[in-house]
Amino acid sequence: MRYEELTIEGRNAVLEAFRSGKTIDKLFVLKGCQDGPVRTIVREAKKHDTIVDFVPKERLDQISETRKHQGVIAYAAAYEYAQVEDMLEAARQKQEDPFLILLDNIEDPHNLGAIIRTANLAGAHGVIIPKRRAAGLTATVAKASAGALNYTPVAKVTNLSQTIKELKEQGIWFVCGDMSGTPMYQLDLKDPIGLVIGSEGEGVGKLVKENCDFTAAIPMMGDIDSLNASVSAGVLAYEIVRQRMQ
Amino acid sequence: MRYEELTIEGRNAVLEAFRSGKTIDKLFVLKGCQDGPVRTIVREAKKHDTIVDFVPKERLDQISETRKHQGVIAYAAAYEYAQVEDMLEAARQKQEDPFLILLDNIEDPHNLGAIIRTANLAGAHGVIIPKRRAAGLTATVAKASAGALNYTPVAKVTNLSQTIKELKEQGIWFVCGDMSGTPMYQLDLKDPIGLVIGSEGEGVGKLVKENCDFTAAIPMMGDIDSLNASVSAGVLAYEIVRQRMQ
Repeated sequence: MRYEELTIEGRNAVLEAFRSGKTIDKLFVLKGCQDGPVRTIVREAKKHDTIVDFVPKERLDQISETRKHQGVIAYAAAYEYAQVEDMLEAARQKQEDPFLILLDNIEDPHNLGAIIRTANLAGAHGVIIPKRRAAGLTATVAKASAGALNYTPVAKVTNLSQTIKELKEQGIWFVCGDMSGTPMYQLDLKDPIGLVIGSEGEGVGKLVKENCDFTAAIPMMGDIDSLNASVSAGVLAYEIVRQRMQ
Repeated sequence: MRYEELTIEGRNAVLEAFRSGKTIDKLFVLKGCQDGPVRTIVREAKKHDTIVDFVPKERLDQISETRKHQGVIAYAAAYEYAQVEDMLEAARQKQEDPFLILLDNIEDPHNLGAIIRTANLAGAHGVIIPKRRAAGLTATVAKASAGALNYTPVAKVTNLSQTIKELKEQGIWFVCGDMSGTPMYQLDLKDPIGLVIGSEGEGVGKLVKENCDFTAAIPMMGDIDSLNASVSAGVLAYEIVRQRMQ
């Protein structure tokens, strides 16, 4: 998958992007390339916690649009990431109990976009995604969000479990969606809450799940395994909405 | 959009497909072509209520894979359609109140697939789509349904409003999703029910909406206009599930 307007190629352009504070979701570097400028770029990437992929020349050539990548190609975020603290502040200002949606392993940009859209309409204060193995805020995500990305902040964190631990200390409860859980209608979801959604294949990671206070199951009456991830997120988010409206 | 394994090209192949009873979702015919074999094919298409598009040669060449279309190309359904009566019979056999999902103007195959998936897991007895302006049961729909298309029947009807009228006489209530409606939590959705979902852009058509007994709104707290159609369908379907479980 590529989003041409967000691909930055060439040593100067990539270095400049890092130094200007632009959020780089991913950096591709020519495998084995160790000269000065490339080392500087990799150092900048590590400083900003950017994922670095060392790839063969063929892969770079394939990604490259300009054919002048000079061994480095960066994918920039189409939107700026927010901080988790900003989301809590937004809730305070609206005098609402915090409502956050956390995504574990959601790599499909259409699902990410649809979930940001749902977060906006369900009144969530933000969406939190992990740095690793998450779709970045690309043009596809923006389009699938139907404009919600302009309103609903998205934060990228290094470690989802750690973020959950920190937020629990601030009085937020965490519920993760999982088939093996308690039917969602039987849970009390009215308190300050973080809703954790996993991918369709793997669900929520073990460590993340262990850090959650509850596990909520959507009743499944059919023959197949799981709902689409963005549909799951919608159904669970609206159960929170329903309980809060009572 | 094309699904190569489902494209049938050439006069004999297309005519044979119709005569063997294969469901053809759409037929493309060369504009102005009026010879005997083509007329026979168009007559078969009309008999089977297939949508016929008369298109210029350039369009046929573009769609064609074999370059030997002879002025006719048909898109066949990857799955067989069911009859509405089969869905009611399935409900009777399970001793459940009928629960149908009707889709108006849903043209996106990913949304159609995700909704069939949701229908399966929410325990709906089938999905009804109109012949015109609906995505067919293509390979993309089958994939997006994550296998649900093997279990949940889909019926294609000529006129959605007419089908609603006929089903109302059999004691089924109809609720359509629309922002201007009553908050869904305030409606009684426990009876035999047909849930009508419209497209994201246009919603449910006027005539279809007039034939529904209720209009259900999903509460919207955010800044943007609407949820993704398959998320809306999921949230509304699960409100029906919740009420039925009480």
